[in-house]
Amino acid sequence: MLFIPRGFRASAVHCGIKKASTREDIALFVADEPSVGAGCYTQNLVVAAPVILDRERTPADNLQAIVVNSGNANACTGPQGMLDARQMAKQTASLCGLSEEQVLVMSTGIIGEPLPMPAVSRGISAAAAQLATDEKAWQAASRGLLTTDTCNKIRSTRFPLGGHEVTILGIAKGSGMIGPRMATMLAVILTDVRLSPTSAQAALARGVEQSFNSISVDGHTSTNDTVLLLASGAASTAELEGSDLAEFERQLRSILTQLALAIVQDGEGATHLIQIDVSGAASANDAKRIAETIAASPLVKTAVAGGDPNWGRIVSAAGYAGVPVDVARLTLRVNDFLLFENGVPQGFDRQAASNSIRHNRQTQIALTVGDGNGQATFWTCDLTKDYVTINADYHT
Amino acid sequence: MLFIPRGFRASAVHCGIKKASTREDIALFVADEPSVGAGCYTQNLVVAAPVILDRERTPADNLQAIVVNSGNANACTGPQGMLDARQMAKQTASLCGLSEEQVLVMSTGIIGEPLPMPAVSRGISAAAAQLATDEKAWQAASRGLLTTDTCNKIRSTRFPLGGHEVTILGIAKGSGMIGPRMATMLAVILTDVRLSPTSAQAALARGVEQSFNSISVDGHTSTNDTVLLLASGAASTAELEGSDLAEFERQLRSILTQLALAIVQDGEGATHLIQIDVSGAASANDAKRIAETIAASPLVKTAVAGGDPNWGRIVSAAGYAGVPVDVARLTLRVNDFLLFENGVPQGFDRQAASNSIRHNRQTQIALTVGDGNGQATFWTCDLTKDYVTINADYHT
Repeated sequence: MLFIPRGFRASAVHCGIKKASTREDIALFVADEPSVGAGCYTQNLVVAAPVILDRERTPADNLQAIVVNSGNANACTGPQGMLDARQMAKQTASLCGLSEEQVLVMSTGIIGEPLPMPAVSRGISAAAAQLATDEKAWQAASRGLLTTDTCNKIRSTRFPLGGHEVTILGIAKGSGMIGPRMATMLAVILTDVRLSPTSAQAALARGVEQSFNSISVDGHTSTNDTVLLLASGAASTAELEGSDLAEFERQLRSILTQLALAIVQDGEGATHLIQIDVSGAASANDAKRIAETIAASPLVKTAVAGGDPNWGRIVSAAGYAGVPVDVARLTLRVNDFLLFENGVPQGFDRQAASNSIRHNRQTQIALTVGDGNGQATFWTCDLTKDYVTINADYHT
Repeated sequence: MLFIPRGFRASAVHCGIKKASTREDIALFVADEPSVGAGCYTQNLVVAAPVILDRERTPADNLQAIVVNSGNANACTGPQGMLDARQMAKQTASLCGLSEEQVLVMSTGIIGEPLPMPAVSRGISAAAAQLATDEKAWQAASRGLLTTDTCNKIRSTRFPLGGHEVTILGIAKGSGMIGPRMATMLAVILTDVRLSPTSAQAALARGVEQSFNSISVDGHTSTNDTVLLLASGAASTAELEGSDLAEFERQLRSILTQLALAIVQDGEGATHLIQIDVSGAASANDAKRIAETIAASPLVKTAVAGGDPNWGRIVSAAGYAGVPVDVARLTLRVNDFLLFENGVPQGFDRQAASNSIRHNRQTQIALTVGDGNGQATFWTCDLTKDYVTINADYHT
């Protein structure tokens, strides 16, 4: 069941940027009225042209459209790349009766090839002619962001807020080259609440930190990572503040987390979602660094793929996270099996522990590192032969 | 042709620590006289018992034996692990007529299982009875360090120094869980020059920085990494200093680098050795961070496995190395094909570039990032399906 936020239309078409499939490769999101927009972007110093463009244009209160292409990242494409990104915005604006600056742009796919602008242009024209509010249009639009993803990722929620019924809808793509610190991922969040640009930007940044910035597939930070939020205000009259704003943030974080987990679960070749909870650290930051280091270890990820409760790889990864760790205070549980307690290996039923990994799609790693208050949760996926196949065969 | 340093004997036996093979699992290296010893160790905060022991005992001028077991890392084994490591040293000392403190210990293999001390003890006794100076004994000893390695790694050199003919012999193991900052690797360096403990330690540390600390297989820093050097002094009369010491360091670095490359070439599942040269950085440290980040990217490593000159993955990895990078100043060559120059993708013969990767066992990535003097070389291997098979199936 999909909830569509008021004041937006969407569409998508296949224009031929993706050569190997007929999946949609241009998606368009248009608000009926000027909307508040915010953005969070990759921390890579090598960034794609649309990231440069969007950074200039967010946050703002007059944004009205997002045009997305998949199949080509428009990254490392030199000055022509910037011209092409601007042209995408310009054409979209022209077709929708907007000014160029009201349009944001996202691209994802192959790095370093110029956009096939004739195809892109045909796609934008066709998409603009099909804008609609029905679920079918939104599902198509969500497919328009995908690259190596095996499924589209769309989540929504509707809830009462300040006497109104409001909606948040989120769409994401991502499967490989996933963070930490964003990912080869794009996300579009559309909501009909009314926000100030400042609170929109703050709410998005905080939510991203605990969702898209707390996942990893292969640790390769991409050039294109972008999360955009548009708030139309069509369902509420006054700008959110106080407890209403806090409730909105909570709901937004839930949508962002659902999308982030959908990306990890769809990690290239993945057979397991791995959740890593680190507690007892001196700070949340220390906890996150330990969790992130465990998540990045190919040895931990292959162990889970093999159904192997190999606690030695987990404990040893904690030891090189770059934060103080005392092995005598480490306690580790995997799927509730106690494997290591205060530095001492524990007897446990190996076969049962292995089965609990093999027979569940999710593996939980819970590591206590002391008695501090620092806690963090990080998600990754396992590393399988299929990851290698996908990435060794993906052509440049 | 192997050159054996004067004043040392070696041996190895299979005692049953390795259950899946009959390969040697205890190796012994004994000097005829008290020797100068130095050590470099893992930077993991979770360390194996023998690392704790050896750190206490190096550098020193009275060391005389190194006992090694493979198949069990004696890591995360609690207080019993320390007792077992000390017992290995004690038994070796007793059999060789030494005091316990003259013996260093190395272990590698599975983490978190207690050493099977009855087998270890039988092995040490048998090895002590077979100590010899012939090449066969040294080859056997080099096999005694191995775990998932597909071949033994032994390199030697003999050269004139200060009127004497001197020898350096190095033995290493390592294949997975390889650095950066050491690796799941062990190395023993034996030489017949005469060194002070201070210059032995300094020469070893400098050499390790440019060899074992400049390689990566999977980025997982192990609990056991150890490089030990013993200098018997049997081939020279006075302690090395000045230009003789510098020449020794140069030769030592060559042996260390040969061993480090042998580890990367034997990286689990590897089909390519990848050399990454970064130049033009503001400092050598910046250059190394960029090279190391490229080396750690599974996307770069799978691209090489697939024979894919995917420069976008390389350039984008440089962008998140955590040091200043300006894409407009990046120039990239892979196997001498110019792929990217000052931020602009270059036309190149894709098929020829792909073939040059496919048909060579070594791939060279050369990235210029500006006009600074900082330069670094880092080595890694490609990531193949076999890496996943090996590590998903290796039992805990």
